[in-house]
Amino acid sequence: MRPSGRSLDQMRSISIETGVTRYAEGSCLIRVGNTHVLCTASVEDKPPPFLRNSGQGWVTAEYGMLPRATHTRGRREAASGKQSGRTQEIQRLIGRSLRAVVDRQALGERQITVDCDVIQADGGTRCAAITGGWVALRLAMNHLMAKGIVTSDPMMDHVAAISCGIYAGQNVLDLDYDEDSAAGTDGNFVITGRGKLVEVQASAEGAPFAFDDLSALLALAAKGTAELVAAQKAAVEK
Amino acid sequence: MRPSGRSLDQMRSISIETGVTRYAEGSCLIRVGNTHVLCTASVEDKPPPFLRNSGQGWVTAEYGMLPRATHTRGRREAASGKQSGRTQEIQRLIGRSLRAVVDRQALGERQITVDCDVIQADGGTRCAAITGGWVALRLAMNHLMAKGIVTSDPMMDHVAAISCGIYAGQNVLDLDYDEDSAAGTDGNFVITGRGKLVEVQASAEGAPFAFDDLSALLALAAKGTAELVAAQKAAVEK
Amino acid sequence: MRPSGRSLDQMRSISIETGVTRYAEGSCLIRVGNTHVLCTASVEDKPPPFLRNSGQGWVTAEYGMLPRATHTRGRREAASGKQSGRTQEIQRLIGRSLRAVVDRQALGERQITVDCDVIQADGGTRCAAITGGWVALRLAMNHLMAKGIVTSDPMMDHVAAISCGIYAGQNVLDLDYDEDSAAGTDGNFVITGRGKLVEVQASAEGAPFAFDDLSALLALAAKGTAELVAAQKAAVEK
Amino acid sequence: MRPSGRSLDQMRSISIETGVTRYAEGSCLIRVGNTHVLCTASVEDKPPPFLRNSGQGWVTAEYGMLPRATHTRGRREAASGKQSGRTQEIQRLIGRSLRAVVDRQALGERQITVDCDVIQADGGTRCAAITGGWVALRLAMNHLMAKGIVTSDPMMDHVAAISCGIYAGQNVLDLDYDEDSAAGTDGNFVITGRGKLVEVQASAEGAPFAFDDLSALLALAAKGTAELVAAQKAAVEK
Amino acid sequence: MRPSGRSLDQMRSISIETGVTRYAEGSCLIRVGNTHVLCTASVEDKPPPFLRNSGQGWVTAEYGMLPRATHTRGRREAASGKQSGRTQEIQRLIGRSLRAVVDRQALGERQITVDCDVIQADGGTRCAAITGGWVALRLAMNHLMAKGIVTSDPMMDHVAAISCGIYAGQNVLDLDYDEDSAAGTDGNFVITGRGKLVEVQASAEGAPFAFDDLSALLALAAKGTAELVAAQKAAVEK
Amino acid sequence: MRPSGRSLDQMRSISIETGVTRYAEGSCLIRVGNTHVLCTASVEDKPPPFLRNSGQGWVTAEYGMLPRATHTRGRREAASGKQSGRTQEIQRLIGRSLRAVVDRQALGERQITVDCDVIQADGGTRCAAITGGWVALRLAMNHLMAKGIVTSDPMMDHVAAISCGIYAGQNVLDLDYDEDSAAGTDGNFVITGRGKLVEVQASAEGAPFAFDDLSALLALAAKGTAELVAAQKAAVEK
Repeated sequence: MRPSGRSLDQMRSISIETGVTRYAEGSCLIRVGNTHVLCTASVEDKPPPFLRNSGQGWVTAEYGMLPRATHTRGRREAASGKQSGRTQEIQRLIGRSLRAVVDRQALGERQITVDCDVIQADGGTRCAAITGGWVALRLAMNHLMAKGIVTSDPMMDHVAAISCGIYAGQNVLDLDYDEDSAAGTDGNFVITGRGKLVEVQASAEGAPFAFDDLSALLALAAKGTAELVAAQKAAVEK
Repeated sequence: MRPSGRSLDQMRSISIETGVTRYAEGSCLIRVGNTHVLCTASVEDKPPPFLRNSGQGWVTAEYGMLPRATHTRGRREAASGKQSGRTQEIQRLIGRSLRAVVDRQALGERQITVDCDVIQADGGTRCAAITGGWVALRLAMNHLMAKGIVTSDPMMDHVAAISCGIYAGQNVLDLDYDEDSAAGTDGNFVITGRGKLVEVQASAEGAPFAFDDLSALLALAAKGTAELVAAQKAAVEK
Repeated sequence: MRPSGRSLDQMRSISIETGVTRYAEGSCLIRVGNTHVLCTASVEDKPPPFLRNSGQGWVTAEYGMLPRATHTRGRREAASGKQSGRTQEIQRLIGRSLRAVVDRQALGERQITVDCDVIQADGGTRCAAITGGWVALRLAMNHLMAKGIVTSDPMMDHVAAISCGIYAGQNVLDLDYDEDSAAGTDGNFVITGRGKLVEVQASAEGAPFAFDDLSALLALAAKGTAELVAAQKAAVEK
Repeated sequence: MRPSGRSLDQMRSISIETGVTRYAEGSCLIRVGNTHVLCTASVEDKPPPFLRNSGQGWVTAEYGMLPRATHTRGRREAASGKQSGRTQEIQRLIGRSLRAVVDRQALGERQITVDCDVIQADGGTRCAAITGGWVALRLAMNHLMAKGIVTSDPMMDHVAAISCGIYAGQNVLDLDYDEDSAAGTDGNFVITGRGKLVEVQASAEGAPFAFDDLSALLALAAKGTAELVAAQKAAVEK
Repeated sequence: MRPSGRSLDQMRSISIETGVTRYAEGSCLIRVGNTHVLCTASVEDKPPPFLRNSGQGWVTAEYGMLPRATHTRGRREAASGKQSGRTQEIQRLIGRSLRAVVDRQALGERQITVDCDVIQADGGTRCAAITGGWVALRLAMNHLMAKGIVTSDPMMDHVAAISCGIYAGQNVLDLDYDEDSAAGTDGNFVITGRGKLVEVQASAEGAPFAFDDLSALLALAAKGTAELVAAQKAAVEK
Repeated sequence: MRPSGRSLDQMRSISIETGVTRYAEGSCLIRVGNTHVLCTASVEDKPPPFLRNSGQGWVTAEYGMLPRATHTRGRREAASGKQSGRTQEIQRLIGRSLRAVVDRQALGERQITVDCDVIQADGGTRCAAITGGWVALRLAMNHLMAKGIVTSDPMMDHVAAISCGIYAGQNVLDLDYDEDSAAGTDGNFVITGRGKLVEVQASAEGAPFAFDDLSALLALAAKGTAELVAAQKAAVEK
């Protein structure tokens, strides 16, 4: 019944390849089905101005999509002269999600910027960006600890994200583009390794949805993010 | 225990004054405690380009805040040359929320722009904007129907929004600024007159939250939006 | 003969309501007929960079119009990414007019920004903004003096503004939108409480005008601004 | 008593050289003392969008200043990404002034853009731009009439502009930079060949000024613009 | 003597992987040593406005660099709101180079946009972009011909590019970042498969260079581009 | 055979008038045939931020074109809100060319900005800008040395630039607009007084060109720049 033939609670195949760029302190290429996102974490040795002399660091994120990541070419944001509202919304979400599991005191007065650039998009790019962004961030923290720059691990937990929605009247896990563009309700769920919620965003694209639907989507999301966390663990332990 | 002395599930006082501007097809000034938002609905007799010859109309929203709506003066967005990511995020949310209860076929090939300008801000401006925006939109629809331009009512239901969150470890309804800036978790809930969900956005500002917390916040939101819907009814029936 | 039925030298009704916002150090809502402008004065405790260590303060103004303040909705300047030439021209005029009656030495090294936001526009918005802006500024100065931050009153005089023009061949006082859009000549006159000129701007919209016409318009303006100054006095003495 | 040694009602030397660029339909280099402005009039064979099918044409103006036209280098507006409020104010003034003496029906559905670029600035650049802009426009009209494109002369009169002000307590004609930067009151007066007013802009830079001062400045301006009109006549008759 | 240990006329290793994205009509990932550029060619079924009804098509290019493609993170151009002068210069060069070998009449009224996004940068990114861009374009042309949309092959020749320069007093082929940042003279040479020049850009970074040096660099470039053309052939024949 | 009747290796007439503006430390108006460029050099007594405390100075350039410098009016870059890619490319070239003959240590910690504004354009504006820019820079250096601010001459050599190209199958020197717009190959050559190369930029506008063509164009350029250097000498010795 799903265009991809997956069962209702079945994720797409997940692959997380680390160390994909030569210069970034942490990096990975995450593939969730045909959605491919390149994530890099860049360490800067001073915090943003509002944290000077606070003893705390900062983690922020930027998001972009290559013009031909999608079925038809989109306009390059650098050429149009501004980031769309959608882009800004997404990168704010990624930043908040990652900060939720970082001990900024332990990080100290430095900033890590996680860049998430979508190479190919087939739905769920913001969720893949959060999940892969965590891996890049984890590796950058390892780098800081290996160098003795940071002594106490700032990573407090895993965090991963997945979209769930109501497609053709059914609650399904991990929407791909075909499902996403036809879904009646669509939600993004950001969940920690210990199964707590960091962010919930659910929208009725068509008819409003019931409180029970939200509960059902949350249950699917819990299953999906558990699988993503397992993939993160495998990736960083390699 | 709440700074305002309200009980945990108590809304601030609500006032919705209609017909506050001379020119708009629908307008109101909504006051939720010290948060005051001026909402106008402007009808344009053609749809946006992507709906030409579709038989359907469109409802969109814009959001702004007067520079001194807040404790300290903020920079005027027109002067800084762009709308912030926060502003864009909010106006996209308002638009989606209102469209969720509009029959765009019944509206026909025209566009209604709902402007929500915050005169004074004490937390919950986006929720007040959705709730008041619905009233302005309802009045503009009445205007189109009274003139015979639209024959079948495009409004399918009420929609209202409220923020809830975890403040000092307690789940509370309708956060004001003092609570909002200190809350561990903060959510905005957009709910229809029939009690269905249109949009859920909940964020851990501090520690991640449990699935049960989300359920508790949803229950508070259902109570609050029911009160807001009652206030909408009273306002438009005057 | 005037669309409103007023006599040639008759002002519209004037109302100035003070203290309309909770946070600004000074504020008022001025209504000149159907033109309504919300004015706030915001004090910042340091001067602009070019006045550092000069012993002097600064007063500046910003002007905006809500999108649906007018008969048809105008584009939001924050969305279009810049302030129009008209907006910049007006806010420069407001700032110059207010500074003309401020002793910047007495103010000391601080800045006051007067925001004038047009809620509803029926002609004469820049004049109403100057007249109401003075009230907001006066109240902010009172606030600074009451707190002992400023010891010698920086306000040297009142200042108010009115438009006059040649409508249907007659010199008329206080043009409303219907008159303004049809006037052959249109002028804005900024005059102090003691009856001196701060700024004169008169333009032939159609045929050039005679030197005598200018004298006649000045006489009308003197009458009008005297009435506005009386209204300012009444408002701040309340 | 004037820094330049001129008498109170003495203009600087005026020179208007026509035909200074090879391509423009009309052009001149106007020199008013050390203020030098290059003016070109460019004809486009269609009107701006808002005049399509109106039978009328349009005259507009743009103003710029070379970065080192002044004592110290100013930032290039093209590099800073926008025209300043001052630039926009000036080019709107030039356009209004020129349109006041053009019969737009006789011009027909075409647009003439008058570019005024300040090569060297010593005060009074906007006035020189209007005076020289008229010459460029006149020559472009001659060109259109010589080619038979326009049959009835659209130029209804001359228009010229001069600044006057109160310098060291005296009313003086044609302020140069030294006077302008020290003047208590400063005005720009746009006057036709028949001695009618097109635009009056007078500002108190310091103390407010009396109604009688304005009259005195107007009288000086009438003298100055008469001399400028004579120079225009001489230039276009060559 | 070269930091990489290469001989003076030795290229870095070249790899061109085709078909790397799912949606683009043509794509490749080109690696020249540690410089990695993702190139996609996107076909749009109408020409740019200036070629409507001309019977001719257009090929254009855009260039971007991921923020952490380099040793230290650079600012994202979409966030800074404009493309740098360097980016614009490079994308104009890529477009001109590719158009030099395209028969735009044979292409017909359509546009192909070649996006070159630098994933990792170690010098020579613009040259790699041209070389890889040709491959993506060639594949897109194959696609159009396979579908029968284009009947006569629009590709008239290969085109490839290489940088050469004077490093430590020696003429060297294919500068990497270490050499590029220290080179006294640096040139980019765009050469066709038949050994003709499309573009030559050589700059003295330090001391001016002799005419003979330019001849020597051209000879190196001829050798290098012949190797790149061989790699292009191997890649598209797979 | 050339539209202008010139022989293949004949320059247009050259004129360099110095001291054309009152305020700049160095200035000239260079005329190469009908191409006229006003060049000014402005000294600022501090270096750009990246050279603070380096003991070195900087020379930079900006380029602009008056809207009606060309056959048809172009859009004013200040009005369109950004400099085109072409403008940026040109001003970067001018800056690099001039810096190639400046001893920045001898200049010391100051910055000279060379503004090149095209008053009239008939091809070759960037080359005229470099040649005239050198004269303005030389005069500004003379000024600094005459005042004793700089003691050792920072100018190490002359630099001049000329375009050459293949027009109607022939190699020609100093392309004018008619030739430039029809040329098959077009190059700009920046050459020092001692006959060394600073910059070579040659492009195939139509068919790719042979290595021998480039040699022939270089020989023409050497002849042309020698004549330009002679004109520079004559101009600065006056």
